[in-house]
Amino acid sequence: MSTKKLARGVALVGAGMSKFGAFKGKTSRDLFVEAFVEMLASVDKPFDPKTIDALYVGNYSSDLFENQGHTAPIMASWVGLTPIPAVRVEDACASAGVALREGILAIASGMCDIVVVGGVEKMTDLATEKVTDTLATAADSQYEIPAGFTFPGFYAAMATSYMAAYGATPETFMKVGIKNHNNGSLNEKAQFGAKITTLMEARKASAAKKGLPVPEWKDELEFLKDERANPIIAWPMRLYDCSPVSDGAAVALLVSEELAGKFSDNPIFVAGVGQASDGALHDREDLNSIPSARLAGQQAYEMAGIQPKDIDFAEVHDCFTIAEIIASEDLGFFEKGEGWKAAEAGETARSGKKPINLSGGLKSKGHPVGASGVGQVVEVWKQLRGQAGERQLPGKLKFGLTHNVGGTGQTCVVHIFERRD
Amino acid sequence: MSTKKLARGVALVGAGMSKFGAFKGKTSRDLFVEAFVEMLASVDKPFDPKTIDALYVGNYSSDLFENQGHTAPIMASWVGLTPIPAVRVEDACASAGVALREGILAIASGMCDIVVVGGVEKMTDLATEKVTDTLATAADSQYEIPAGFTFPGFYAAMATSYMAAYGATPETFMKVGIKNHNNGSLNEKAQFGAKITTLMEARKASAAKKGLPVPEWKDELEFLKDERANPIIAWPMRLYDCSPVSDGAAVALLVSEELAGKFSDNPIFVAGVGQASDGALHDREDLNSIPSARLAGQQAYEMAGIQPKDIDFAEVHDCFTIAEIIASEDLGFFEKGEGWKAAEAGETARSGKKPINLSGGLKSKGHPVGASGVGQVVEVWKQLRGQAGERQLPGKLKFGLTHNVGGTGQTCVVHIFERRD
Repeated sequence: MSTKKLARGVALVGAGMSKFGAFKGKTSRDLFVEAFVEMLASVDKPFDPKTIDALYVGNYSSDLFENQGHTAPIMASWVGLTPIPAVRVEDACASAGVALREGILAIASGMCDIVVVGGVEKMTDLATEKVTDTLATAADSQYEIPAGFTFPGFYAAMATSYMAAYGATPETFMKVGIKNHNNGSLNEKAQFGAKITTLMEARKASAAKKGLPVPEWKDELEFLKDERANPIIAWPMRLYDCSPVSDGAAVALLVSEELAGKFSDNPIFVAGVGQASDGALHDREDLNSIPSARLAGQQAYEMAGIQPKDIDFAEVHDCFTIAEIIASEDLGFFEKGEGWKAAEAGETARSGKKPINLSGGLKSKGHPVGASGVGQVVEVWKQLRGQAGERQLPGKLKFGLTHNVGGTGQTCVVHIFERRD
Repeated sequence: MSTKKLARGVALVGAGMSKFGAFKGKTSRDLFVEAFVEMLASVDKPFDPKTIDALYVGNYSSDLFENQGHTAPIMASWVGLTPIPAVRVEDACASAGVALREGILAIASGMCDIVVVGGVEKMTDLATEKVTDTLATAADSQYEIPAGFTFPGFYAAMATSYMAAYGATPETFMKVGIKNHNNGSLNEKAQFGAKITTLMEARKASAAKKGLPVPEWKDELEFLKDERANPIIAWPMRLYDCSPVSDGAAVALLVSEELAGKFSDNPIFVAGVGQASDGALHDREDLNSIPSARLAGQQAYEMAGIQPKDIDFAEVHDCFTIAEIIASEDLGFFEKGEGWKAAEAGETARSGKKPINLSGGLKSKGHPVGASGVGQVVEVWKQLRGQAGERQLPGKLKFGLTHNVGGTGQTCVVHIFERRD
């Protein structure tokens, strides 16, 4: 395996998403239509959707969540794209990131000029324990699941290993959550758009209103250390270390580089693409890093001809807070074992040197698993074009990165996007 | 949407499959390994599997069949391909055909030179009614399933419509089944490797042995008209009109055209590719044709620069016997409404003008849904290279076609393969 070049360049000329959250009565179809309509509105110049050549849909398991397989042609039909080829791509929580990559390859192949890539998941119709079981099918059902693992357990194992190796503490993880909730409070599409302080004050007010003793949390960290407020799910991962169960969809429009100007005044270019696979977690030599993420990152940097230091901001796969710290090392932003210190020092905050998850990340924005990879692209699209509103990062931005993980890293896919003007 | 060209050519240099059937105790992994090993053995010249760039796996629903999602990296791991990109593609029963197309696009894109495409399904661990429910998720779960449809019902509706429009009878369909069982009797990998006559004689012998009255079936048709031997599933589709529930896997090796000679003394080239989508069956104007198949066929012919008459033989998606007749018209082998006459006249038999399903088809070979599309490629690989043993079609063969349908035609993907020497 070697890093190769795309036979022709690909540009991102539109992106949109549904609100992420829990939407009783809405199906995958409704959410996908919502995202598709917003994507259409985001395209600078008028174009005829009938010229679209193919649709790629990331979806983890509508089979189990909604009793619906064969989702891609259904989505095509609901957004009026029939009879173009419609392909569902599944790589667990990396489904949409991999769908994006397939869309890029389809254009590079010469078979398509204009491609819609999206992702969708409707998770909240199932009971919580069923959701956990469904997500567990993304692990190894022969070896890992019978041993009692579910995903909070996997990431808790990674977190304890990381703490033992490098000195991070449960507070480190809490600080990641606080940062992402702060970011998400500026994102109108986020499932949890409240800062942790806001949640804390609301809890106090509610207690006071009911005439109960008002908890004396003096700051967010004290609030998060209180088991009543933030119960342990799988130590050291507590409730606010875990991304939520979510419904949502995200859609992006890709075109060949030579068409970009016909669609957009300000297109964004695909500079780097990387993807790798791995075996089960128990087969790894080291729980403190995700090898597929390191490889995917290296491929993407090599293709883009840049270094980690050139990335202005990144949307990484913070399914659990520990995952964001590990990602920040796997992507080369910080040395191995140093990511937690950078997080504690605020280097990954909006105001830091390497802002991570300006959207709020999966933690606050929500994690409709099969949609998250393209949800990340929506943020990059907005930030690189200066359209992120209240949460716009100041200054001239050139490179944004997305990092999307399936399972515990059996899949990782990384994309680097570039603004060229 | 227009038919475009691949940026670079792609060749097929290996193909293999597991036996198709019901294998208690075997998982998807075991079957995939079996197919992969046979694929490796089919490659003419030695090569290092470590040079493979990507893996595409068609799989309909290991989620529901085996409680296992995220199957692609697991397959990669089990055949030693980790850490290459591993992508699961799902388009119901067309999953493997679409995975094949994605593999072709990946090579054409310049990102890959050597790609493994495969498909796998392990269906027989579930109880029969659960299998039917699982397959039904390939239809529209909001509109079609609540109305009481399952797949035998859908295809029965197509069959009754076709009979009313053109004069076919239930006997027509039985003749398709007889032909495919005859073909499958020459295929050592087939789930049902027996001719219908053989089954009939076995039934008679069994009755005689038990001292029961021996049925007086004088030929296969009389046997198939007897409800005791061939019960109605959804009229006019009887048991022997339906493809079976199967376990199996199939794997093919693709390389860029310029590498073909390094792998094979006799490579097969991808001459045409077509894929299209459609809405639900109830939205169609006409139940006697599958529009996505017509479109996919047209695209493939146009890319290959040939006509239906140039195809020497085809593997088509005979999930039900009626489906083969409709396919033979959708692909342009016969005029609309004429396919049943051609089938009755033996034109699609081994000895006919347009042999269809020399492998036995899904009907006799078996239909592990997510594997069938690449299973068809294994037959084309063998026939075009003159390696089909007892079932080898005589004469010089140039073009073989595969036609793989998802659901009732929400997806169809067609490939044309060419021998150039």
